[in-house]
Amino acid sequence: MHFIMMKLFRVVKRGYYISYAILDNSTIIRLDEDPIKALMRYSENKEVLGDRVTGIDYQSLLKSFQINDIRITKPIDPPEVWGSGISYEMARERYSEENVAKILGKTIYEKVYDAVRPEIFFKATPNRCVGHGEAIAVRSDSEWTLPEPELAVVLDSNGKILGYTIMDDVSARDLEAENPLYLPQSKIYAGCCAFGPVIVTSDEIKNPYSLDITLKIVREGRVFFEGSVNTNKMRRKIEEQIQYLIRDNPIPDGTILTTGTAIVPGRDKGLKDEDIVEITISNIGTLITPVKKRRKIT
Amino acid sequence: MHFIMMKLFRVVKRGYYISYAILDNSTIIRLDEDPIKALMRYSENKEVLGDRVTGIDYQSLLKSFQINDIRITKPIDPPEVWGSGISYEMARERYSEENVAKILGKTIYEKVYDAVRPEIFFKATPNRCVGHGEAIAVRSDSEWTLPEPELAVVLDSNGKILGYTIMDDVSARDLEAENPLYLPQSKIYAGCCAFGPVIVTSDEIKNPYSLDITLKIVREGRVFFEGSVNTNKMRRKIEEQIQYLIRDNPIPDGTILTTGTAIVPGRDKGLKDEDIVEITISNIGTLITPVKKRRKIT
Amino acid sequence: MHFIMMKLFRVVKRGYYISYAILDNSTIIRLDEDPIKALMRYSENKEVLGDRVTGIDYQSLLKSFQINDIRITKPIDPPEVWGSGISYEMARERYSEENVAKILGKTIYEKVYDAVRPEIFFKATPNRCVGHGEAIAVRSDSEWTLPEPELAVVLDSNGKILGYTIMDDVSARDLEAENPLYLPQSKIYAGCCAFGPVIVTSDEIKNPYSLDITLKIVREGRVFFEGSVNTNKMRRKIEEQIQYLIRDNPIPDGTILTTGTAIVPGRDKGLKDEDIVEITISNIGTLITPVKKRRKIT
Amino acid sequence: MHFIMMKLFRVVKRGYYISYAILDNSTIIRLDEDPIKALMRYSENKEVLGDRVTGIDYQSLLKSFQINDIRITKPIDPPEVWGSGISYEMARERYSEENVAKILGKTIYEKVYDAVRPEIFFKATPNRCVGHGEAIAVRSDSEWTLPEPELAVVLDSNGKILGYTIMDDVSARDLEAENPLYLPQSKIYAGCCAFGPVIVTSDEIKNPYSLDITLKIVREGRVFFEGSVNTNKMRRKIEEQIQYLIRDNPIPDGTILTTGTAIVPGRDKGLKDEDIVEITISNIGTLITPVKKRRKIT
Repeated sequence: MHFIMMKLFRVVKRGYYISYAILDNSTIIRLDEDPIKALMRYSENKEVLGDRVTGIDYQSLLKSFQINDIRITKPIDPPEVWGSGISYEMARERYSEENVAKILGKTIYEKVYDAVRPEIFFKATPNRCVGHGEAIAVRSDSEWTLPEPELAVVLDSNGKILGYTIMDDVSARDLEAENPLYLPQSKIYAGCCAFGPVIVTSDEIKNPYSLDITLKIVREGRVFFEGSVNTNKMRRKIEEQIQYLIRDNPIPDGTILTTGTAIVPGRDKGLKDEDIVEITISNIGTLITPVKKRRKIT
Repeated sequence: MHFIMMKLFRVVKRGYYISYAILDNSTIIRLDEDPIKALMRYSENKEVLGDRVTGIDYQSLLKSFQINDIRITKPIDPPEVWGSGISYEMARERYSEENVAKILGKTIYEKVYDAVRPEIFFKATPNRCVGHGEAIAVRSDSEWTLPEPELAVVLDSNGKILGYTIMDDVSARDLEAENPLYLPQSKIYAGCCAFGPVIVTSDEIKNPYSLDITLKIVREGRVFFEGSVNTNKMRRKIEEQIQYLIRDNPIPDGTILTTGTAIVPGRDKGLKDEDIVEITISNIGTLITPVKKRRKIT
Repeated sequence: MHFIMMKLFRVVKRGYYISYAILDNSTIIRLDEDPIKALMRYSENKEVLGDRVTGIDYQSLLKSFQINDIRITKPIDPPEVWGSGISYEMARERYSEENVAKILGKTIYEKVYDAVRPEIFFKATPNRCVGHGEAIAVRSDSEWTLPEPELAVVLDSNGKILGYTIMDDVSARDLEAENPLYLPQSKIYAGCCAFGPVIVTSDEIKNPYSLDITLKIVREGRVFFEGSVNTNKMRRKIEEQIQYLIRDNPIPDGTILTTGTAIVPGRDKGLKDEDIVEITISNIGTLITPVKKRRKIT
Repeated sequence: MHFIMMKLFRVVKRGYYISYAILDNSTIIRLDEDPIKALMRYSENKEVLGDRVTGIDYQSLLKSFQINDIRITKPIDPPEVWGSGISYEMARERYSEENVAKILGKTIYEKVYDAVRPEIFFKATPNRCVGHGEAIAVRSDSEWTLPEPELAVVLDSNGKILGYTIMDDVSARDLEAENPLYLPQSKIYAGCCAFGPVIVTSDEIKNPYSLDITLKIVREGRVFFEGSVNTNKMRRKIEEQIQYLIRDNPIPDGTILTTGTAIVPGRDKGLKDEDIVEITISNIGTLITPVKKRRKIT
């Protein structure tokens, strides 16, 4: 079948993982192969192997997360997830708060902001990621954890973009603020990363620099925080981030790179147990995840 | 067979990976199972499954790296490698150089030094690691890359120590010095990590805090740098590092944690193509790796 | 999904094997799992895991065998195929020809006919079987090879019937006629066995003893032989055959037992290269296979 | 290692299958690879991959079958086992008993004896075979089951001989005698086939037509039957049998063909529960198996 693939999603049903592609928001194709292979095949020659299926109520799955024995999950198992930071235009003062680490008078954020080299970090292994409807986590030792709503790209081993998705680069901001050397602890732990609900191919994202990203935190049924940004504010272009990611650093097919955030809820907006995080990006969709605060083991 | 296992090593022969355990520095056992499973079985009940073999000239393999079609390699494929930093007593001035990032007057290193929470970072995936006799790498964009000679522990998924090894946490110090946000780029790339030549079990390391670590860099046949430290200078105890590593962060069996360094060759001692790095730790052995400078792709 | 599964078929597409179930001869379900597992699940609790698909033109596939890159193939890979013989009522003279082996005056066929114990034989491994549209073979050293059109049952490891299919137990009758000790050579070789095009479940076969079996051999576009029989002529009941098959002889899930033939084209009707064999069984369908005469290697 | 491989055996230890080769009846090599691959590599270039081991008391294993947690087992898992019959010179009367099936006056055995084409039959799948020290079976419905002590060859997919072993082609002679159409039931069932204790390579068997085969049946501690023959009485040469086996019939690497027997204990020598069968072939060894009579399930 040759067509314009739009969205790729995956469900789990009685232990079987099954992948689908959606065409024109109406036709659903059940993929013959692993979704990373399907993205690569599509990227290569605009071809998809699979069957047209009926009876998959995608919209209801997005809303309910689970229908009977079918539960939506991460669209792929990315062998590696990497992140980037300080990639958006931001008010200078944002990056220059008093208590941030400084090098010869400039904060480390300002320094990256002005530098040629971007910030690139290892974000997650696949088992630390969750999908649409699955719970992200707040570390047991963090009092201030924020969602970071971001546009993410799925890459092949050459750094070619196979697709786009929504990623929540959940971060324990208090750890990070205490010391930049705590960044890995802030960034990498069980439930630190959500992405989905779908991966869309480049056909859908004609211009990745004109997408609206919106973040909502819902607490006890009410919108507790809302913010948005357009990717036209991204200064550190995606291709540039990718070039640094793969420099001397081979990545496997299906690696995800998340491209940084510009929406930062404040000090008083840290996630709490049972909050709901909703991230919307135009042309992709809305990623919804509940929040689970881990308990301290003493 | 019940006995005191001393050292575990692995070779590759015509595409087959074969693991051995050495007893009393003389008897060699060929393991029936994957070396991570063997370490777990041994840790559980001091038992090893395997055959006594003859004709394996371990000492010659250590020296020549390859004999006929047998080449020594990484003793295990650790699913994840993590690192720790600022774990040794060091002269205060070391951590407080002028150009290091500071937070309210203190360098970030001093802050970790004084803090309860250690620095823990994601160091490598197995494909980025090399073994004894295999080449570590200097990034194409680094002019100052240093070896970091460290005692490392192999852990099970509960954080229990299954064994000890020598690790070289190779780091692009110029990237790291430029900005702590570049730490992941400094730390994670192809060839960033060497370990081996063996893993020794806890029987061999009665006290991990009384081991001599020596680093030699050999250039054009001469010792270009030499330094040593004893692990009795480790302030941040290994158990403490492990507790932070596994807090809210499940790790797989066979994960390696490297425990930090206190030997830091200076600015003028950066690794060059064709250097040889030798790291010796008492009761474990000597890990030798050549250095390969990556070429810029322009 | 709970429903009456009717027919199960399988295709191969660019190296992927994909299994389908057809409901009410109209709805097509793409199975989530291996077709043997699907048959077992259905047999257990009338349940099928899969998606409704559209665009699979099953009738055209049956006719053309291949549409674009989709080719119909064996519905399952049976780990073992067993056969039974002398299971139908037949004119006594059929079994008592002059040149047939005799024991104390009775032919061996007559003896089986009258005996309690049925004839059961090992027929094929999966790689020796072909599916609908794929070529059956005539041995290079046989001048008289006949198709044997039979009703076959798919069994689980307890001998429970999971489904029914059409089987062609192709046999080199001249080898067999020469000496019963040559039966395995007559019965087992590459291309000795065809089955399909589908497996139907027991719901479809209310009474396996009232099915019409028809055999046509088409040569150069014309019907060269035609014969038929009804399974109501089967004397040796299927359950009886199964009981002897599994006596002291454990079989794996998905084993096929073919239940014997009563249509025997004569001496002058041996298969030739490029003949077409068509076997029809009511409630199952028509299995069509071309014939390929193997060349002698001298 | 390049040397003359003599014998290949395999043990099972805590669920691990481990293969060994014995050199000059003294040096034991633990094989790096699957024993079928090892036989093929050796056959190709007289090379074996493995380590010399000590502490394997092969002679005691042969005698005790199990030492601590190590049990000797089948030397390989042959994907298919085939047999041949009527391959030895025998007194004509042997083949012409009154009650044997006859074709136009000659028994079917006499006919094969005189014919160009040998008898070739499917004997067993790997799960129906046992090794040294493991129990062969008497069918629950057989009153007269005999061992058939035979020289067997291990073949690659081209029919090339990779090695030799001892095989017991256990047969329910009463079923076979009743009707040749019952041969598969006589020949194929759980525990119908034993082979081992080792596979020897062709170096050890300079001339396969000068080997003594001896059969002993031990009942209640005494030799109940003993008989022997030399393979110089084999009329139907092994190569001839192989040529018919592989004619139009592709076999997988590691297939075993057993070459027929000439030792036939009489009517009153049928195997009973708890008998011990010992088969010795010069240059190979002695295969010992207890007998287990299956119980009727009613």
